[in-house]
Amino acid sequence: MPKSSNRDKILTEGLRVVHERGFAGASVRDIVQAAGVPQGSFTNHFASKEAFGLEIIDLYFAASWALIQKTLRNDELPPLQRLGAYLDANTERLSPAGMRHGCLFGNFSAEASEHSEAIRRRIVEIFAQVQQSIAYCLEAAVRAGELPAGFECGEAADFVLTSLQGALLLAKAQRSSAPVERLKRVLFSKVLN
Amino acid sequence: MPKSSNRDKILTEGLRVVHERGFAGASVRDIVQAAGVPQGSFTNHFASKEAFGLEIIDLYFAASWALIQKTLRNDELPPLQRLGAYLDANTERLSPAGMRHGCLFGNFSAEASEHSEAIRRRIVEIFAQVQQSIAYCLEAAVRAGELPAGFECGEAADFVLTSLQGALLLAKAQRSSAPVERLKRVLFSKVLN
Repeated sequence: MPKSSNRDKILTEGLRVVHERGFAGASVRDIVQAAGVPQGSFTNHFASKEAFGLEIIDLYFAASWALIQKTLRNDELPPLQRLGAYLDANTERLSPAGMRHGCLFGNFSAEASEHSEAIRRRIVEIFAQVQQSIAYCLEAAVRAGELPAGFECGEAADFVLTSLQGALLLAKAQRSSAPVERLKRVLFSKVLN
Repeated sequence: MPKSSNRDKILTEGLRVVHERGFAGASVRDIVQAAGVPQGSFTNHFASKEAFGLEIIDLYFAASWALIQKTLRNDELPPLQRLGAYLDANTERLSPAGMRHGCLFGNFSAEASEHSEAIRRRIVEIFAQVQQSIAYCLEAAVRAGELPAGFECGEAADFVLTSLQGALLLAKAQRSSAPVERLKRVLFSKVLN
C-alpha cells in the first residue's frame, strides 16, 4: 500500500481528535501531533483551520452518506425497516466510544456555528440532505402502505432528524445509547402511523 | 444600588461570552475583557476555568428553574397548557439572539463533556431535573384527564427533553425557531394523546 500523505494523515487523525475534543478544543498543535507530522505541514496543506474544518466535515459526511445509501435510500428493503436500520446504524457508529463523542454535525452546530459562517452553512446543507433522505424513505413507506396516504413526510422527516440529533446529544452527555433506543420506540409507536 | 463586585461581573459577562462563543472558544482573557476587570481577578475568584464553568451553569440554571416554576410546575394552569408554555418560553429566551446561541446545557454537552467530568455530571443532573419537571406536568395531565390513564409519563418526559434539545440545536444551526414550533405541533398531535 502506498504511504499515506501528510495531508491524509492530518485529515484522518485530525477528524478523530476534533470528534473527541471539539473544534475549538483541538488546537492545530494537537492535530499535527496526533498525525505525527511537522507543524508546518498543516499550513502547507490548509489555508486555515476553517478550511481544514470544512474538509473533515466532508470526510465524516462521506461515511454518513454511505450509511444512508445502505439504509434510508436502499430500495431493496421495506421502507420503515430502513429507517429503523438507519437509527441503529447511528448508534453502532458511536457506540465503540460509549456514545461519548456524539454526532460530529451536532457538535459543530453547538460550538462552531458562531465562529465560522462557512461551517454553519455546510452543516445546514448536510442536515437538509439527511432530512431529504428520511423524507424519501417515508414517501416510500406511504407508497408501500406502511404509512397512511396523506402522511406529512416532509414535516415528519424534519422531526426525525431533529429528535435524532437531540438523542445523540443526550447520549453523549449520559454516555448511553438509551436516548436513541427510546427515540426509536416513540417514533414507531406514536409518530410513524 | 451597590456596585457589583468583580466576581459578579465575571460571572454575568462570562456567562454571556461562553453562551455566545462556547466554553473552549471563550478564553479567560475574553472573559475578563468582557467583564472589564484585570486578568488577575479571574484567578483570585475561581480556582480554575472548570470551577468558573460550574458556576455559570448554576447561574443559567437558576433562570431555567424560574421558568420551570412558572410553567411546568405551575399548578394554577391546565397541565398540557403548561408544557406548551414551557416550550414557548425556551424559544422566547433564545429568540432575542435569533436562536443562534442555543441552550447552554446542550452546548456544554456537545463540547465540554469530554473535557470535564464534573461539568458533564452537573449537566446530566440538570437534564434529570428538567425531565422530572416535565414528568410532573404529564402526571398532572393524566390526573386531569388530559392524557389517558396508563400514559407512560417518564418515558414521554425523557422524549420531550431529548427532542427539545435537538430542536434547540437545529434552531441554533438554522437560526430559526421553526424546529421548536414543529416539535410542539408533532408532540401535541401525535405523542401526547
